[in-house]
Amino acid sequence: MNSFWNEYPKLQLELDEVTKLIENSVKDSHNFITSAVEDTIHSGGKMLRPALVILGSKFGNEPKNSILNLAAIVEMLHVATLIHDDIIDESKLRRGIESVQSKYGKDSAVFIGDYLFAKLFTLMSKDFHQETMVEMSKVIMRICQGELIQYSFRYKYNSSIMHYLKIITGKTASLFSLSLYIGSEESNADETVKKLLAKTGYRIGMAFQIIDDCLDYSSKNIIKKSTMNDLKQGYLTLPVIYALQNDRKGYLENLLKNGTFTKNESDNIHALVVENKGLEKSRELALKYTNKAYDSMNKLPDCESKETIKFIIDKLLIRDY
Amino acid sequence: MNSFWNEYPKLQLELDEVTKLIENSVKDSHNFITSAVEDTIHSGGKMLRPALVILGSKFGNEPKNSILNLAAIVEMLHVATLIHDDIIDESKLRRGIESVQSKYGKDSAVFIGDYLFAKLFTLMSKDFHQETMVEMSKVIMRICQGELIQYSFRYKYNSSIMHYLKIITGKTASLFSLSLYIGSEESNADETVKKLLAKTGYRIGMAFQIIDDCLDYSSKNIIKKSTMNDLKQGYLTLPVIYALQNDRKGYLENLLKNGTFTKNESDNIHALVVENKGLEKSRELALKYTNKAYDSMNKLPDCESKETIKFIIDKLLIRDY
Repeated sequence: MNSFWNEYPKLQLELDEVTKLIENSVKDSHNFITSAVEDTIHSGGKMLRPALVILGSKFGNEPKNSILNLAAIVEMLHVATLIHDDIIDESKLRRGIESVQSKYGKDSAVFIGDYLFAKLFTLMSKDFHQETMVEMSKVIMRICQGELIQYSFRYKYNSSIMHYLKIITGKTASLFSLSLYIGSEESNADETVKKLLAKTGYRIGMAFQIIDDCLDYSSKNIIKKSTMNDLKQGYLTLPVIYALQNDRKGYLENLLKNGTFTKNESDNIHALVVENKGLEKSRELALKYTNKAYDSMNKLPDCESKETIKFIIDKLLIRDY
Repeated sequence: MNSFWNEYPKLQLELDEVTKLIENSVKDSHNFITSAVEDTIHSGGKMLRPALVILGSKFGNEPKNSILNLAAIVEMLHVATLIHDDIIDESKLRRGIESVQSKYGKDSAVFIGDYLFAKLFTLMSKDFHQETMVEMSKVIMRICQGELIQYSFRYKYNSSIMHYLKIITGKTASLFSLSLYIGSEESNADETVKKLLAKTGYRIGMAFQIIDDCLDYSSKNIIKKSTMNDLKQGYLTLPVIYALQNDRKGYLENLLKNGTFTKNESDNIHALVVENKGLEKSRELALKYTNKAYDSMNKLPDCESKETIKFIIDKLLIRDY
């Protein structure tokens, strides 16, 4: 398990329980499914989303016994989207271990993901509000729409910030937002609190994804291998989109159009992204979202969970990137 | 639209309405989704599954107004599985038109399918019994498990009949069974009737798939191109599995192991499947399921819908194959 929650041993115990619930819920299925899920949940992720569900639930008026089940469902949804995502990216690795599509084949990866989607709706229907299920379905739809937008904007070097924001809303922010929201929905929190939590989750997610995309360009002169793959396939993230807007002479665009990059060219791409303020402006935007996340978080009623959400923002979003 | 329902103009009108409902439910989504769905539902399929939902509902004690919506949901589920199926098979065509994965790319096909799954659960949660949703999720899980079994038995030339039956249960029979069942569930039919309908649907589905697999080997000396592809990828259907059991000298197995087939070799495969009674024994099994389907259908209370189900069995399963 990740050491992220070291200072929160109670939450860590709850997350261990969530892991067990996930294992249990797939233990009778095809061995490909069982072991794909095992591999993914034991690969050292932070379990951020289930943690947000648990934290959100603490703001409610009536504690919900089965909240860990809901946290497990949300993590299963995340795992399913990761598995399908890797098919697309043809990723060989996920968090340093072999990806499901590489280990079990693309064919299996499609159906393992589908199985998990169906499974989570079954689990969902047992004990949770209809509103929770509807919101969860909407998030899946948003994730898919985000991915489709991302796909249709490949190789478009005039891609707008707005499209990028839509893509990362789907990809990351909507699930962060949902997690905090449904936790509080299930424990019958007040409407204002629920809305504040959804907003906070959304803003954390946006900042988180932008920072992640910045980190790919942060080390001196080196672009991560995975980013090189994205660029080769025409997928652009915020630092490049900003840089392209300043790239009046089209140097960066020409380099990107090549499709394959020598070591020298990749150094040049890196330099042009930095020179054209791609990184700087992205960091500014991430900071804006971070500050907004603090704003809405601060408006929440004081409690232990609020402190933990503050810790998440501090640790996740205030990094050297 | 397919001419299958020519003798049933009322049902045909209802199915036209179902088509419109499907179009409506995706009209505000990403244009890849809208047009992928449009293409699929206008490709001349028989709309068997939504027809079964409608027919099942007529056995109930309280007619359900929104039954056409449920029929639309079931067809959307079918469309989603077709789209994901084609990714695996790398199919260029589906019912003679370009497949979604070929037209929009594999990447999009994964997310268009996922979107439809999520969408149908949203539609589902509005107006239908929880039981219906749980049963539908279970069917999706069964379909996935069937596909995974199919995948893990590739290139296994001692594949058992039992595994084949499990695979086609997932692939075809479970959704036929579900369709008749949930129709009657939503209109509050009696337990006995619901069970009989589920059984009838299952048996029709099993016979239907076996017949489909036989048709691939039925024309004299010719194996369909799609079957050749299946064989190349190590996927075996019932006629081959039966034939392999009689293939004591291993001629057929050796031919299949080759992986690529000349015209001459494919003729030989065909001849060996026939010679080793692969086709004959498959037809016998299809007939068994057909007769069982008649049995359970006959036990249903007399009504117009029962006659239509009889028509489906006659037309779908009593063919020259």
